[in-house]
Amino acid sequence: MATPHEPKQDRSRATRQRLLEATIDCLAELGWAAATVAVVAERAGVSRGAAQHHFPTREDLITAALEYMFDTRTAQAKQEAALLDATTVGVARTHAVVRGLVESYTSPLFKAALQVWTYAAADPVLRERIVPLEARFGRVSHRRAVEALGVDDRDPVAHHLVQATMDLARGLGLANVLTDDSARRKDIIQQWAATLHAALYPEG
Amino acid sequence: MATPHEPKQDRSRATRQRLLEATIDCLAELGWAAATVAVVAERAGVSRGAAQHHFPTREDLITAALEYMFDTRTAQAKQEAALLDATTVGVARTHAVVRGLVESYTSPLFKAALQVWTYAAADPVLRERIVPLEARFGRVSHRRAVEALGVDDRDPVAHHLVQATMDLARGLGLANVLTDDSARRKDIIQQWAATLHAALYPEG
Repeated sequence: MATPHEPKQDRSRATRQRLLEATIDCLAELGWAAATVAVVAERAGVSRGAAQHHFPTREDLITAALEYMFDTRTAQAKQEAALLDATTVGVARTHAVVRGLVESYTSPLFKAALQVWTYAAADPVLRERIVPLEARFGRVSHRRAVEALGVDDRDPVAHHLVQATMDLARGLGLANVLTDDSARRKDIIQQWAATLHAALYPEG
Repeated sequence: MATPHEPKQDRSRATRQRLLEATIDCLAELGWAAATVAVVAERAGVSRGAAQHHFPTREDLITAALEYMFDTRTAQAKQEAALLDATTVGVARTHAVVRGLVESYTSPLFKAALQVWTYAAADPVLRERIVPLEARFGRVSHRRAVEALGVDDRDPVAHHLVQATMDLARGLGLANVLTDDSARRKDIIQQWAATLHAALYPEG
């Protein structure tokens, strides 16, 4: 129940956010087909009428959730890079950057995004909506990784190795969807960080 | 026993294979929900009755298609490695191995498998069926790559770098689902082959 001092507009915004977060949870746990307005409303503890006030159709809900997902992932990528301590240097820094990128592909947000991507693979309208969002997320992630690593992105070796690291992260994310892959992943991240570090800073 | 011109058993086997290939095409192009026995039968040019004789339920069809997919991917991984010319050596050989691994994740077979994986993420019964198939494919792919590269898999650096290359390949496959990523992918493959080669054979 709403607290009396909470303005109506804030309550409405909080309800909207609860619905979007419930959509992500439903997509990640129950899959594409199950994430309907009714199921999401129940998960969010919001009446179906209130949910339909915010999102009249399932398409409205999925579209809003998609933008919310990308905004959240982009904000997390920025925050991840900002949190990196200036005293973390050398291969430890490279390791932290690689681990941060991989983490962004192993969260429930990635599992939810995978449901939408996979559906969009056979749905051109949804695909057209996702491609620019995904491209923007990719650019922000790439830029933050380049800054954190302190490399020159105009150098094709550095550029392509940062891109490869994001592809590795996406692949590790996908490998984690059907089983808990965290033990194997830890070793892969460590080895990739060492190899990446040697390739990016050949002078040692 | 008499052998007619086209034995009934062979015809039946050919029909079954046509249905399985049509299932993969339908999954890759139309997505999970659209790949029903009726749609697949029409795509295969097989009567619905004949399709139901082979696969009474959609579950039977999907299960058989799943095994067929993994058998085909595993056979392709073996063939890919066998086709590698003994005169292809040095970084060119490493490049060919990386390219072969990545190709196995960018085929229509991968797109079909992704539809099943993603559905299975929220379906424990299907997941239990896929996990051992995927593990077997991973082992065969890994072993063939190790053989083709001529490295010692007991060396943790080599072991983890071959694993990482498969994770990179999976990530590149996923990046190719919503857009044609082939131009970017070519550069990533080339750079990773060079970096992998330097890491696997440090003596040059």
